[in-house]
Amino acid sequence: MRPVIALLSDFGSTDHYAGTMKGVMLGICPDVTLVDISHGITAHDVLEGALQLAACCRYFPAGTIFLAIVDPGVGSARRGIAAEAGDYRFVAPDNGVLTAVLKEFPPRRVVELTERRYARPTVSRTFEGRDRFAPAAAWLAKGIQLQALGRPAQEYVRLHIPEAEVHDDRVDGAVLRVDRFGNLVTNIERRTLEKFAQSHAVAIHAGEFPVERLVATYADMRPGEVCALYGSSDHLELAENGASAAARLGLARGAAVTVRRSAPTG
Amino acid sequence: MRPVIALLSDFGSTDHYAGTMKGVMLGICPDVTLVDISHGITAHDVLEGALQLAACCRYFPAGTIFLAIVDPGVGSARRGIAAEAGDYRFVAPDNGVLTAVLKEFPPRRVVELTERRYARPTVSRTFEGRDRFAPAAAWLAKGIQLQALGRPAQEYVRLHIPEAEVHDDRVDGAVLRVDRFGNLVTNIERRTLEKFAQSHAVAIHAGEFPVERLVATYADMRPGEVCALYGSSDHLELAENGASAAARLGLARGAAVTVRRSAPTG
Amino acid sequence: MRPVIALLSDFGSTDHYAGTMKGVMLGICPDVTLVDISHGITAHDVLEGALQLAACCRYFPAGTIFLAIVDPGVGSARRGIAAEAGDYRFVAPDNGVLTAVLKEFPPRRVVELTERRYARPTVSRTFEGRDRFAPAAAWLAKGIQLQALGRPAQEYVRLHIPEAEVHDDRVDGAVLRVDRFGNLVTNIERRTLEKFAQSHAVAIHAGEFPVERLVATYADMRPGEVCALYGSSDHLELAENGASAAARLGLARGAAVTVRRSAPTG
Repeated sequence: MRPVIALLSDFGSTDHYAGTMKGVMLGICPDVTLVDISHGITAHDVLEGALQLAACCRYFPAGTIFLAIVDPGVGSARRGIAAEAGDYRFVAPDNGVLTAVLKEFPPRRVVELTERRYARPTVSRTFEGRDRFAPAAAWLAKGIQLQALGRPAQEYVRLHIPEAEVHDDRVDGAVLRVDRFGNLVTNIERRTLEKFAQSHAVAIHAGEFPVERLVATYADMRPGEVCALYGSSDHLELAENGASAAARLGLARGAAVTVRRSAPTG
Repeated sequence: MRPVIALLSDFGSTDHYAGTMKGVMLGICPDVTLVDISHGITAHDVLEGALQLAACCRYFPAGTIFLAIVDPGVGSARRGIAAEAGDYRFVAPDNGVLTAVLKEFPPRRVVELTERRYARPTVSRTFEGRDRFAPAAAWLAKGIQLQALGRPAQEYVRLHIPEAEVHDDRVDGAVLRVDRFGNLVTNIERRTLEKFAQSHAVAIHAGEFPVERLVATYADMRPGEVCALYGSSDHLELAENGASAAARLGLARGAAVTVRRSAPTG
Repeated sequence: MRPVIALLSDFGSTDHYAGTMKGVMLGICPDVTLVDISHGITAHDVLEGALQLAACCRYFPAGTIFLAIVDPGVGSARRGIAAEAGDYRFVAPDNGVLTAVLKEFPPRRVVELTERRYARPTVSRTFEGRDRFAPAAAWLAKGIQLQALGRPAQEYVRLHIPEAEVHDDRVDGAVLRVDRFGNLVTNIERRTLEKFAQSHAVAIHAGEFPVERLVATYADMRPGEVCALYGSSDHLELAENGASAAARLGLARGAAVTVRRSAPTG
């Protein structure tokens, strides 16, 4: 079966950077299938990259290699790492961009990218994606073992990803990301909220804004109404049918979202 | 020969959504070739998706499977469908996004996506692209027959796509889409206009703006001049060489374009 | 080994144009691997296309075919060409978009795309990418010889690409391109500057703005400080760590960058 490398970066799609990495990888492993997850991560936003990677990872076939490069520290002493976790392998700078996937899939093995033979002969200090990370991913696709890439890493950097806090009378959450449609994706998971709510209805506030209804899908909303629903990753989302909830509410990442119990249902 | 799936959506290229669908498809059919037509369709704009799909479809090799997802009704009762038409197969929500291609290639068979074994085990009501449509396309690529995807569909939704109206003294058309270069693509086809004009020259108005010349290519225009020409799909376009006609004229989709006969030529 | 075609254009990613070319190529050469370098070149900006192509070309595997279409003269009398140079082949309009790569890799053979059998039967005067250039690239991938595409071209168009000028007391350069991160990439090469500076430190001005430090990587900069460094193509860049130097300095392509010797180092 042809190996798959899935790419995520903040390189954008205007510059040649993502294409250059693909050229490097095809030179090492000509039969690789290259798939773009996104190159539109906000520049230098490691947390956004970490969340996007975690949102899609499990939908890729077993054996997929993920190359995730959001790297404000390129060229500095921060390390490069590769990890085996779940059915996947990951190559990335050691800056926390793997935090969320390695929380979901605790890694069996993490190595530092110290083996020079699996990097390009000269490693630019401004484009390690091309010279160090892409080659490492392509060599994995070509069949080498993870441990060939370098010495074991005892630790790896983890970001703080804010989690929803469950109190007696409320759940305090936050907006983690705004998607293309203006949907506000929160850090409140369906299972957390269902356990909290029990047989009660819930009252939701996004910032100051009351969001009264929890619906099953966008089509259940009335025009102009912002509702809550469980999105495709089973996180609570605030959305408006056919329009941008983010624009209507004037909210962005980090905005507080609070859920309280109201009257019992049923 | 490796099967081809061509993707069109309004998912954008910032979020992971299109990549996630590709991961799902590679899990089902590892040797598929995935090609992006566009993920930049205006959010929820089914008509724009329908027109873009029709503009490129016939240039793909026989056997191509098109996965077209512009789906404001995701999660609602609107159906999913698959169709065989021309040398192609199509998978899409039944909301009219296939209107233009199925007008060009009248379908031999249309089915509803009712067979659960060709969807993911759990179908999210906010991301049927991932859980229902992408799997259906990948199973077709893998070799199943269209009718295996579900029961025959007697009807399918068709959008009203405004057509040019030919009167005795004029053709009334409209701008269907504005492309990246600011070219205004109309619904007036070359054959319609040639039949109307006969041996006469034509006078064209875009909104209030007189467009005096019909030229063969962009390079025939003088700097700052907006002209008409037949674009790559043989539709009348209004364009400016090296600049945006849309910006200069302040026109967008829906703007009226009228053609009258003027003096005889030749 | 599967042939590789790498695409660069100003078609954007909203319209179907790049996807349509891919459909055409897959019809001719089904086992080709298609790689996007960028479709986000500024509309009609041949120089930008030429520079981006040259920045990534050498990182692709030997045998790669490059299809480069930034073509303000589409449909005019300007020719289409194909070239063999280095380990690569190139297909493009003859308007200078190959200037920089053919300077780096002097061509062994250049032909004009005159052979009609390797174009589509009807060639649109507004989309030669689809009807002439993409087919030519795909036929090369399929295995034909370059000279089969048409008659030898004695000349080809070259753009003036401004080069840094070395004077006794200074190097006069310019910003060639601004990348996604707001880094200002200049036409001053590392070897030029190292030869000029000898054992002296250098004082750099970008427009009116003094850039005092030459550092090794972004992480060496203090917050809010604009520094110079050698970027991934060994050209001098002006950058700010985690922010846009272009925005801070208010500079764009064409801005003057001057380097003078200051005190001896060491």
